[in-house]
Amino acid sequence: MSLYAKHAALLEQARHACRQRHCWSPYPDMPAKYPGAEQAQPEGERAFVSHLGTAAQRRRFELDQPGTLAWIGEEISPYTQQPLQIDYPQADLDTLFAAAQHAIPAWADADIESRLGLLMEVLEVIYRKHLFEITHAVMHTAGQSYNMAYAGSGVNALDRGIEALVYAEQAMRAVTGSARWERSFGPSQIRLEKTYRVVPRGVAVCFTCASFPTWNAWPSMMASLATGNAVIVKPHPATVLPMAISVRVFRHVLAEAGFDPDLVTLALDTRAEPIGKRLVQHPKTALVDFTGSVQFGQWVEKNAYPALAFTETAGSNTVVLESADDLDAVLRSLATTLCMFSAQMCTSPQNIYDPRQGVRTPDGWVGLEDVGRRLAQAVRELTREPKKAAMILAAIQSPQTLALLKQLKTQGQERGTVLLAPEPYPHPQFPQARTSTPLMLAVSKSERDLYAGERFGPISFVIACDSAEDALAQASADVREFGGLTAFVYSTDEAFMARAESAYARAGAQLTINLTGAMPLNFAAAYSDYHVTGLNPAGNASLTSLAFVSSRFCISQSRRPARADSTERSLQGDHHGHQ
Amino acid sequence: MSLYAKHAALLEQARHACRQRHCWSPYPDMPAKYPGAEQAQPEGERAFVSHLGTAAQRRRFELDQPGTLAWIGEEISPYTQQPLQIDYPQADLDTLFAAAQHAIPAWADADIESRLGLLMEVLEVIYRKHLFEITHAVMHTAGQSYNMAYAGSGVNALDRGIEALVYAEQAMRAVTGSARWERSFGPSQIRLEKTYRVVPRGVAVCFTCASFPTWNAWPSMMASLATGNAVIVKPHPATVLPMAISVRVFRHVLAEAGFDPDLVTLALDTRAEPIGKRLVQHPKTALVDFTGSVQFGQWVEKNAYPALAFTETAGSNTVVLESADDLDAVLRSLATTLCMFSAQMCTSPQNIYDPRQGVRTPDGWVGLEDVGRRLAQAVRELTREPKKAAMILAAIQSPQTLALLKQLKTQGQERGTVLLAPEPYPHPQFPQARTSTPLMLAVSKSERDLYAGERFGPISFVIACDSAEDALAQASADVREFGGLTAFVYSTDEAFMARAESAYARAGAQLTINLTGAMPLNFAAAYSDYHVTGLNPAGNASLTSLAFVSSRFCISQSRRPARADSTERSLQGDHHGHQ
Repeated sequence: MSLYAKHAALLEQARHACRQRHCWSPYPDMPAKYPGAEQAQPEGERAFVSHLGTAAQRRRFELDQPGTLAWIGEEISPYTQQPLQIDYPQADLDTLFAAAQHAIPAWADADIESRLGLLMEVLEVIYRKHLFEITHAVMHTAGQSYNMAYAGSGVNALDRGIEALVYAEQAMRAVTGSARWERSFGPSQIRLEKTYRVVPRGVAVCFTCASFPTWNAWPSMMASLATGNAVIVKPHPATVLPMAISVRVFRHVLAEAGFDPDLVTLALDTRAEPIGKRLVQHPKTALVDFTGSVQFGQWVEKNAYPALAFTETAGSNTVVLESADDLDAVLRSLATTLCMFSAQMCTSPQNIYDPRQGVRTPDGWVGLEDVGRRLAQAVRELTREPKKAAMILAAIQSPQTLALLKQLKTQGQERGTVLLAPEPYPHPQFPQARTSTPLMLAVSKSERDLYAGERFGPISFVIACDSAEDALAQASADVREFGGLTAFVYSTDEAFMARAESAYARAGAQLTINLTGAMPLNFAAAYSDYHVTGLNPAGNASLTSLAFVSSRFCISQSRRPARADSTERSLQGDHHGHQ
Repeated sequence: MSLYAKHAALLEQARHACRQRHCWSPYPDMPAKYPGAEQAQPEGERAFVSHLGTAAQRRRFELDQPGTLAWIGEEISPYTQQPLQIDYPQADLDTLFAAAQHAIPAWADADIESRLGLLMEVLEVIYRKHLFEITHAVMHTAGQSYNMAYAGSGVNALDRGIEALVYAEQAMRAVTGSARWERSFGPSQIRLEKTYRVVPRGVAVCFTCASFPTWNAWPSMMASLATGNAVIVKPHPATVLPMAISVRVFRHVLAEAGFDPDLVTLALDTRAEPIGKRLVQHPKTALVDFTGSVQFGQWVEKNAYPALAFTETAGSNTVVLESADDLDAVLRSLATTLCMFSAQMCTSPQNIYDPRQGVRTPDGWVGLEDVGRRLAQAVRELTREPKKAAMILAAIQSPQTLALLKQLKTQGQERGTVLLAPEPYPHPQFPQARTSTPLMLAVSKSERDLYAGERFGPISFVIACDSAEDALAQASADVREFGGLTAFVYSTDEAFMARAESAYARAGAQLTINLTGAMPLNFAAAYSDYHVTGLNPAGNASLTSLAFVSSRFCISQSRRPARADSTERSLQGDHHGHQ
């Protein structure tokens, strides 16, 4: 059975989900529900541990790719604050590009089914054999909690990968493989056979970020590879292991199926000597996928030409609180989302815009100071107990985030009110973990330089606006100017909701209205929620629209006079198409 | 009946044609077959003549768009070499952009059917009321023959417009309008209603070229408008009238349907004071469609950011002659294509790569000198008789082309052999027409600086290569480096054809193999032939692939807890989607 046949039923369900955008996933949403979880979980942890070296003896992560110049690695676990002591191959870039280019023709010549089947198999192998290994690798590089690493960086990322395959297939299937074309020119009848082929653009470079590597990487890689391109993965030097494991799986599955494994390679750098600009501007780079900072992302968008760039950067995600039937439920939901993974997610809200006069509730107005105080209290509740704090806050990926918290707390004291001061919490499992409870500041809308733009980490602002309309206008204007992926509005007024929908649709932040309860507000579901619109500086690429895949390949055609033997077949296919 | 309903059956046929890529068009391919041609043709000519002014009294082309600063026009008919004496409004650009932006929201809020129906109506109005008027306008600006202006700039361009609508619709329909999403989080069941909307990028600027304005303009405008954007048309100052008539039709149909006509406006400049760069880099420009020179096209691609650029420029289209069963038929077809509209088409071949030893035929080898001589003779045959010459060569759009012919003839004499020297031919209908028979040079492949890149006009090179393989290698390498839209290979060797298909597929030129007879070799059929691949410097946008349309809009979404009344409807739509 071909790999395509093996995965055909699943792919069909995924196609259906992408059309309907209902809730669907082939994967269990919690680690405990994974088939054979009791055995798989400790096995995954052992596999992770087996990668680790020691100070006395660093360990090499073997990757049989060409051009290795040196072995480097500088990952430090946010949970232990100890180096992982893993070295990865540092490759000569020209060698990687040459190997990738050499590998492309046979891959591009394979039919769509072969590529889709193989890439579904890659996802399957990751799921069956490496999911918990990657879960631990994400924990000890990105700092995510175990459950989030499993869900957000594991199964949801796999879902995003399948979704990218669905759209890549849809874009390629829009191109028929062959046609018969027949027309009279004067008295002559011209009959042509035409063939069309999907031609990949070339070598894609996929940048992955420190805090959430797989979630964007897997779909980007799937989109490029499905359409016949090769991919060089450039992980953030702080978070290499999840991508190194991924690259090894891709290479293994490719080689097993008789394709050149150099279709997927790893290009590693160090913080001291970054290679990002060289990769983007390499003459053989045809596509760039980038997840990371706004600053470098905008440089990529501007300088990638002639390569095409697909970016997701960041923004200040916004909340507008106009009115609520159950303000406590709203504040609990907001508090949970502000705490989740210490707001180190590109979808975490940061700026809460409120009318100065407060929020309307069935019991009357709740003053703005009161709203801020109660929200801070809800966050405090969530983070008071270390075990609960650990589950929700997890660890802080980078020491820079702690420095930013300190700096913003000082600025907040000077220019507004500190609603909640950050402090380390003791992680019950990892006493050395880099942790912090959130910083919450109350400011007036004139402190825009403080809150506009992403402040990465557990930092939020309650911003006093003149009115609900002003809050909405400020929030959506900030999104347009500084970027924003998600937005959250609470209102009991349908007309206000409609205005919010319009304002955020144009600003390009994906809006959630009046959500409370068990679902994390910023949860983005594959097959259903579009991630990034492309309408503001938070990125130009959406997971997953046709625009994310359709320019990754071109269409070449060939036509020639029809041969006699092709007449009958063609007439059968074509006859109802003529007028 | 809505406009969508009015055009639904036609649109469905077009969708089918785009899927199957067979021959289809709702339009007659020759002027004489136009319904009521006997009356329509003279009416069209009268309508054209009514636009013309005189030296004593220039005539204004009224266009009720805002921001008119002055009235300008510098068109000269290539057939009479007299000014058309038409003035068009020269607009303040900021006013046009502001008006376009103001017009977008209502247009974007209209549903897909409304936009598609209205745009089909625009094409219908052009076809029913303005086709022969535009035919004459194209003749007396671009210099095309009457038949070509009717077909290539008329009905084929309308076909390309419908085709763009089909793909725009396909890309937008891939986004469902709403969904119901339901999942458990722990013990809680979360039910969300989601809505998705297509959000246009903003204002598109559409540059049109001097020699073939409508063919790229109409599909580009359709692609932008269908997806909710506004369009500012920037015609080449030498060829304004066909686009001014088009813009007026768009505006009229938009206004009739209650939309803001400022969704389509005209921005005119002069050769002395071009506004192209200002338009591309205007802060409100979101999309740029460009047809024109390689040089400015590459500047556009590089400098449009943050706007997205779609370009078609030019290249050196190539021919490889390896072997032929009927060499005379091949040479006749090549000669016809070299002459057609004096090779002022982006698809006209220019460089003919031949093995030094000649071409294999059933009667033995025909030496290269002989091939060149016979090809020149075939061209001479076609152009000897003025009436026939006029039909095929038509007129030379720009005086610069005559200067280039002169210059290349001199260089050809020095560095190769002049197979055919250009000379004016007397146009039977327009004695003052700017005309020239073709220049044909024979050179060795080392004269690459002479032939590589587009030499615009009736100029071709027979290039001596070491072998057939060398000819194919040189030709496809030149395409990759300098660009190329079309390629033509003649061979009786299936293996050679297969190698040619692979080489040109990667180089990105659309290949025609062994075509002889009545069909012009470089004829590109809407719904069937992809025009430009995006794989080489001849342009980055293909007419029409999903990539041409799918990034012209973004997707915004909104989600909220499901309301009770939506349950039943949604369950009906969704139940078979759940596992």
